[in-house]
Amino acid sequence: MRAEFVNPFLSSLVNVLTTMAQLEITPKKPQVKKTEIAKGDVSGLIGMVGPKTKGSLSVTFEEELALEIMSRMLGERPTSIDADVTDMVGEITNMVTGGAKRILAEKGFDFEMATPIVVSGKEHTITHKSEGQIILMPFDSEFGRAYIEICFD
Amino acid sequence: MRAEFVNPFLSSLVNVLTTMAQLEITPKKPQVKKTEIAKGDVSGLIGMVGPKTKGSLSVTFEEELALEIMSRMLGERPTSIDADVTDMVGEITNMVTGGAKRILAEKGFDFEMATPIVVSGKEHTITHKSEGQIILMPFDSEFGRAYIEICFD
Repeated sequence: MRAEFVNPFLSSLVNVLTTMAQLEITPKKPQVKKTEIAKGDVSGLIGMVGPKTKGSLSVTFEEELALEIMSRMLGERPTSIDADVTDMVGEITNMVTGGAKRILAEKGFDFEMATPIVVSGKEHTITHKSEGQIILMPFDSEFGRAYIEICFD
Repeated sequence: MRAEFVNPFLSSLVNVLTTMAQLEITPKKPQVKKTEIAKGDVSGLIGMVGPKTKGSLSVTFEEELALEIMSRMLGERPTSIDADVTDMVGEITNMVTGGAKRILAEKGFDFEMATPIVVSGKEHTITHKSEGQIILMPFDSEFGRAYIEICFD
Protein backbone atom coordinates (compact mmCIF):
# COMPACT_ATOMS: atom_id res chain seq x y z
CA MET A 1 0.00 0.00 0.00
CA ARG A 2 1.40 3.38 -1.00
CA ALA A 3 2.19 6.29 1.28
CA GLU A 4 -0.18 8.58 -0.63
CA PHE A 5 -2.90 6.23 0.51
CA VAL A 6 -1.82 5.91 4.15
CA ASN A 7 -0.99 9.55 4.85
CA PRO A 8 -4.52 10.97 4.52
CA PHE A 9 -5.74 8.74 7.38
CA LEU A 10 -2.70 9.43 9.50
CA SER A 11 -2.88 13.21 9.13
CA SER A 12 -6.66 13.22 9.60
CA LEU A 13 -6.37 11.71 13.08
CA VAL A 14 -3.57 14.09 14.06
CA ASN A 15 -5.65 17.06 12.81
CA VAL A 16 -8.89 15.95 14.46
CA LEU A 17 -7.25 15.56 17.88
CA THR A 18 -5.37 18.85 17.59
CA THR A 19 -8.53 20.69 16.56
CA MET A 20 -11.06 19.06 18.87
CA ALA A 21 -8.93 18.47 21.96
CA GLN A 22 -5.71 20.46 21.55
CA LEU A 23 -4.00 17.13 22.03
CA GLU A 24 -0.81 16.17 20.28
CA ILE A 25 -0.15 12.62 19.18
CA THR A 26 3.01 11.42 17.47
CA PRO A 27 2.69 9.08 14.50
CA LYS A 28 5.12 6.16 14.58
CA LYS A 29 6.16 4.26 11.47
CA PRO A 30 3.17 2.70 9.64
CA GLN A 31 3.64 -1.00 9.01
CA VAL A 32 2.05 -3.91 7.24
CA LYS A 33 0.36 -5.72 10.10
CA LYS A 34 1.94 -9.05 10.86
CA THR A 35 2.74 -9.63 14.46
CA GLU A 36 1.98 -6.38 16.24
CA ILE A 37 -1.54 -6.36 17.59
CA ALA A 38 -3.46 -3.19 18.39
CA LYS A 39 -4.84 -3.78 21.86
CA GLY A 40 -7.10 -1.08 23.16
CA ASP A 41 -10.08 -0.32 25.34
CA VAL A 42 -12.35 1.57 22.97
CA SER A 43 -12.41 1.40 19.16
CA GLY A 44 -14.39 2.99 16.37
CA LEU A 45 -14.90 0.84 13.27
CA ILE A 46 -16.27 1.79 9.90
CA GLY A 47 -16.86 -0.02 6.62
CA MET A 48 -15.94 1.50 3.25
CA VAL A 49 -17.44 0.56 -0.12
CA GLY A 50 -16.26 1.91 -3.47
CA PRO A 51 -17.01 1.08 -7.08
CA LYS A 52 -13.77 -0.91 -7.39
CA THR A 53 -12.96 -1.80 -3.81
CA LYS A 54 -14.21 -2.37 -0.29
CA GLY A 55 -12.49 -2.23 3.04
CA SER A 56 -12.58 -1.33 6.69
CA LEU A 57 -10.99 1.07 9.12
CA SER A 58 -10.54 1.02 12.88
CA VAL A 59 -9.34 3.66 15.32
CA THR A 60 -8.37 2.20 18.70
CA PHE A 61 -7.59 4.12 21.91
CA GLU A 62 -6.22 3.10 25.25
CA GLU A 63 -8.64 4.11 28.00
CA GLU A 64 -6.48 6.84 29.55
CA LEU A 65 -6.05 8.56 26.20
CA ALA A 66 -9.78 8.39 25.40
CA LEU A 67 -10.64 9.88 28.80
CA GLU A 68 -8.08 12.65 28.36
CA ILE A 69 -9.55 13.60 24.96
CA MET A 70 -13.05 13.74 26.55
CA SER A 71 -11.76 15.79 29.42
CA ARG A 72 -10.17 18.34 27.07
CA MET A 73 -13.29 18.59 24.94
CA LEU A 74 -15.83 18.85 27.78
CA GLY A 75 -13.80 20.24 30.66
CA GLU A 76 -14.91 17.25 32.73
CA ARG A 77 -13.27 13.89 32.96
CA PRO A 78 -15.46 10.79 32.90
CA THR A 79 -14.32 8.01 35.25
CA SER A 80 -14.79 5.27 32.69
CA ILE A 81 -15.72 4.65 29.05
CA ASP A 82 -19.37 5.73 29.10
CA ALA A 83 -21.89 6.62 26.38
CA ASP A 84 -20.35 10.10 25.93
CA VAL A 85 -16.95 8.56 25.26
CA THR A 86 -18.32 6.04 22.74
CA ASP A 87 -20.21 8.89 21.01
CA MET A 88 -16.96 10.83 20.77
CA VAL A 89 -15.04 7.83 19.42
CA GLY A 90 -17.78 7.27 16.82
CA GLU A 91 -17.52 10.93 15.83
CA ILE A 92 -13.71 10.80 15.58
CA THR A 93 -13.99 7.67 13.41
CA ASN A 94 -16.40 9.49 11.07
CA MET A 95 -14.16 12.56 10.91
CA VAL A 96 -10.93 10.64 10.26
CA THR A 97 -12.53 8.53 7.52
CA GLY A 98 -14.36 11.52 6.05
CA GLY A 99 -11.17 13.62 6.01
CA ALA A 100 -9.21 10.87 4.26
CA LYS A 101 -12.11 10.24 1.86
CA ARG A 102 -12.02 13.84 0.60
CA ILE A 103 -8.26 13.74 -0.02
CA LEU A 104 -8.40 10.33 -1.71
CA ALA A 105 -11.37 11.34 -3.90
CA GLU A 106 -9.17 14.11 -5.36
CA LYS A 107 -6.69 11.39 -6.34
CA GLY A 108 -9.46 9.43 -8.07
CA PHE A 109 -9.94 6.84 -5.33
CA ASP A 110 -13.62 6.92 -4.35
CA PHE A 111 -15.51 5.15 -1.61
CA GLU A 112 -18.65 5.62 0.47
CA MET A 113 -18.66 5.19 4.25
CA ALA A 114 -21.00 2.95 6.25
CA THR A 115 -22.12 4.10 9.72
CA PRO A 116 -19.57 3.70 12.52
CA ILE A 117 -19.68 1.07 15.26
CA VAL A 118 -17.94 1.57 18.60
CA VAL A 119 -16.58 -1.34 20.63
CA SER A 120 -15.84 -0.99 24.31
CA GLY A 121 -14.05 -3.63 26.34
CA LYS A 122 -10.77 -3.90 28.25
CA GLU A 123 -7.87 -4.87 25.97
CA HIS A 124 -9.91 -6.07 23.03
CA THR A 125 -8.19 -6.88 19.76
CA ILE A 126 -9.38 -6.26 16.23
CA THR A 127 -8.87 -8.35 13.10
CA HIS A 128 -9.72 -6.97 9.67
CA LYS A 129 -10.86 -9.85 7.48
CA SER A 130 -9.94 -8.94 3.93
CA GLU A 131 -7.90 -10.19 1.02
CA GLY A 132 -5.75 -7.07 1.09
CA GLN A 133 -2.86 -5.96 3.27
CA ILE A 134 -3.66 -4.51 6.66
CA ILE A 135 -1.78 -1.31 7.44
CA LEU A 136 -1.22 -0.54 11.11
CA MET A 137 -0.43 3.06 12.12
CA PRO A 138 0.61 3.42 15.76
CA PHE A 139 0.51 6.78 17.57
CA ASP A 140 2.10 7.76 20.87
CA SER A 141 1.02 10.42 23.33
CA GLU A 142 1.80 11.23 26.93
CA PHE A 143 -1.59 9.72 27.87
CA GLY A 144 -1.34 6.43 26.01
CA ARG A 145 -1.45 4.90 22.58
CA ALA A 146 -3.80 5.02 19.64
CA TYR A 147 -3.85 2.90 16.48
CA ILE A 148 -5.42 3.20 13.07
CA GLU A 149 -5.77 0.09 10.98
CA ILE A 150 -6.97 0.19 7.39
CA CYS A 151 -7.50 -2.54 4.93
CA PHE A 152 -8.82 -2.67 1.35
CA ASP A 153 -9.57 -5.71 -0.79
CA MET B 1 -38.28 -1.36 11.39
CA ARG B 2 -40.50 -3.91 9.71
CA ALA B 3 -40.45 -7.67 10.20
CA GLU B 4 -39.78 -8.23 6.50
CA PHE B 5 -36.55 -6.38 7.08
CA VAL B 6 -35.50 -8.13 10.31
CA ASN B 7 -36.40 -11.71 9.37
CA PRO B 8 -33.83 -12.18 6.58
CA PHE B 9 -30.98 -11.54 9.05
CA LEU B 10 -32.53 -13.70 11.73
CA SER B 11 -33.19 -16.67 9.46
CA SER B 12 -29.76 -16.32 7.82
CA LEU B 13 -27.96 -16.87 11.13
CA VAL B 14 -30.18 -19.84 12.03
CA ASN B 15 -29.54 -21.38 8.59
CA VAL B 16 -25.80 -20.75 8.60
CA LEU B 17 -25.32 -22.43 11.99
CA THR B 18 -27.57 -25.37 11.09
CA THR B 19 -25.75 -25.91 7.81
CA MET B 20 -22.18 -25.28 8.91
CA ALA B 21 -22.24 -26.71 12.42
CA GLN B 22 -25.47 -28.71 12.82
CA LEU B 23 -26.13 -26.40 15.74
CA GLU B 24 -29.59 -25.22 16.68
CA ILE B 25 -30.16 -21.74 18.08
CA THR B 26 -33.51 -20.35 19.15
CA PRO B 27 -34.41 -16.80 18.13
CA LYS B 28 -35.96 -14.74 20.93
CA LYS B 29 -38.14 -11.73 20.29
CA PRO B 30 -36.34 -8.98 18.29
CA GLN B 31 -36.48 -5.62 20.00
CA VAL B 32 -35.62 -2.00 19.45
CA LYS B 33 -32.42 -1.65 21.44
CA LYS B 34 -32.82 0.53 24.46
CA THR B 35 -31.51 -0.94 27.67
CA GLU B 36 -30.48 -4.48 26.83
CA ILE B 37 -26.83 -4.63 25.91
CA ALA B 38 -25.30 -7.41 23.86
CA LYS B 39 -22.22 -8.45 25.79
CA GLY B 40 -20.10 -11.06 24.16
CA ASP B 41 -16.58 -12.35 23.72
CA VAL B 42 -16.21 -12.38 19.94
CA SER B 43 -18.11 -10.29 17.39
CA GLY B 44 -18.14 -9.92 13.64
CA LEU B 45 -18.99 -6.43 12.34
CA ILE B 46 -19.75 -5.30 8.82
CA GLY B 47 -20.67 -2.02 7.18
CA MET B 48 -23.43 -1.74 4.58
CA VAL B 49 -23.77 1.02 1.96
CA GLY B 50 -26.73 1.39 -0.41
CA PRO B 51 -27.83 4.06 -2.86
CA LYS B 52 -30.39 5.40 -0.35
CA THR B 53 -29.08 4.21 2.98
CA LYS B 54 -26.12 3.09 5.03
CA GLY B 55 -25.85 1.01 8.13
CA SER B 56 -24.02 -1.60 10.13
CA LEU B 57 -24.47 -5.13 11.39
CA SER B 58 -22.88 -7.06 14.24
CA VAL B 59 -23.05 -10.73 15.20
CA THR B 60 -21.86 -11.37 18.75
CA PHE B 61 -21.15 -14.74 20.41
CA GLU B 62 -20.41 -15.80 23.93
CA GLU B 63 -17.10 -17.68 24.04
CA GLU B 64 -18.54 -21.12 24.83
CA LEU B 65 -20.91 -20.94 21.89
CA ALA B 66 -18.17 -19.79 19.48
CA LEU B 67 -15.90 -22.64 20.61
CA GLU B 68 -18.73 -25.18 20.22
CA ILE B 69 -19.40 -24.01 16.65
CA MET B 70 -15.67 -24.39 15.85
CA SER B 71 -15.57 -27.81 17.45
CA ARG B 72 -18.51 -29.02 15.36
CA MET B 73 -17.05 -27.64 12.16
CA LEU B 74 -13.49 -28.89 12.66
CA GLY B 75 -13.88 -31.88 14.94
CA GLU B 76 -11.42 -30.23 17.31
CA ARG B 77 -12.15 -27.77 20.06
CA PRO B 78 -9.86 -24.75 20.44
CA THR B 79 -9.17 -23.79 24.06
CA SER B 80 -9.69 -20.08 23.47
CA ILE B 81 -10.70 -17.56 20.81
CA ASP B 82 -7.78 -17.92 18.40
CA ALA B 83 -7.22 -16.90 14.77
CA ASP B 84 -9.27 -19.85 13.49
CA VAL B 85 -12.24 -18.74 15.58
CA THR B 86 -12.02 -15.11 14.42
CA ASP B 87 -11.77 -16.36 10.79
CA MET B 88 -14.93 -18.39 11.35
CA VAL B 89 -16.78 -15.46 12.93
CA GLY B 90 -15.76 -13.22 10.01
CA GLU B 91 -17.04 -15.87 7.59
CA ILE B 92 -20.36 -16.23 9.48
CA THR B 93 -20.75 -12.43 9.43
CA ASN B 94 -20.24 -12.40 5.65
CA MET B 95 -22.68 -15.27 5.13
CA VAL B 96 -25.42 -13.82 7.36
CA THR B 97 -25.19 -10.40 5.72
CA GLY B 98 -24.88 -11.89 2.23
CA GLY B 99 -27.90 -14.14 2.80
CA ALA B 100 -30.03 -11.23 4.01
CA LYS B 101 -28.74 -9.02 1.18
CA ARG B 102 -30.03 -11.46 -1.47
CA ILE B 103 -33.50 -11.66 0.11
CA LEU B 104 -33.72 -7.88 0.60
CA ALA B 105 -32.53 -7.14 -2.96
CA GLU B 106 -35.57 -9.10 -4.23
CA LYS B 107 -37.74 -6.68 -2.24
CA GLY B 108 -36.01 -3.71 -3.86
CA PHE B 109 -33.76 -2.86 -0.91
CA ASP B 110 -30.18 -2.83 -2.19
CA PHE B 111 -26.89 -2.42 -0.39
CA GLU B 112 -23.25 -3.39 -0.82
CA MET B 113 -21.20 -4.93 1.96
CA ALA B 114 -17.85 -3.69 3.26
CA THR B 115 -15.29 -6.25 4.49
CA PRO B 116 -15.92 -7.73 7.95
CA ILE B 117 -13.99 -6.89 11.10
CA VAL B 118 -13.77 -9.27 14.04
CA VAL B 119 -13.41 -8.06 17.63
CA SER B 120 -12.17 -10.35 20.35
CA GLY B 121 -12.22 -9.44 24.04
CA LYS B 122 -13.92 -10.69 27.18
CA GLU B 123 -17.38 -9.18 27.62
CA HIS B 124 -17.02 -6.35 25.15
CA THR B 125 -20.04 -4.26 24.20
CA ILE B 126 -20.99 -2.79 20.85
CA THR B 127 -22.71 0.49 20.03
CA HIS B 128 -23.99 1.21 16.53
CA LYS B 129 -23.73 4.95 15.91
CA SER B 130 -26.48 5.83 13.50
CA GLU B 131 -29.52 8.07 13.19
CA GLY B 132 -31.78 5.05 12.79
CA GLN B 133 -33.24 2.53 15.21
CA ILE B 134 -31.03 -0.30 16.36
CA ILE B 135 -32.71 -3.69 16.26
CA LEU B 136 -31.39 -6.30 18.68
CA MET B 137 -32.09 -9.98 17.94
CA PRO B 138 -31.13 -12.29 20.80
CA PHE B 139 -30.62 -16.05 20.28
CA ASP B 140 -30.41 -18.82 22.87
CA SER B 141 -28.62 -22.15 22.64
CA GLU B 142 -27.52 -24.78 25.11
CA PHE B 143 -23.96 -23.46 24.76
CA GLY B 144 -24.63 -19.78 25.30
CA ARG B 145 -26.08 -16.73 23.65
CA ALA B 146 -25.66 -14.95 20.36
CA TYR B 147 -26.92 -11.55 19.24
CA ILE B 148 -27.42 -9.83 15.93
CA GLU B 149 -27.73 -6.05 15.90
CA ILE B 150 -28.62 -4.13 12.76
CA CYS B 151 -29.02 -0.48 12.19
CA PHE B 152 -29.76 1.66 9.12
CA ASP B 153 -29.76 5.43 8.78
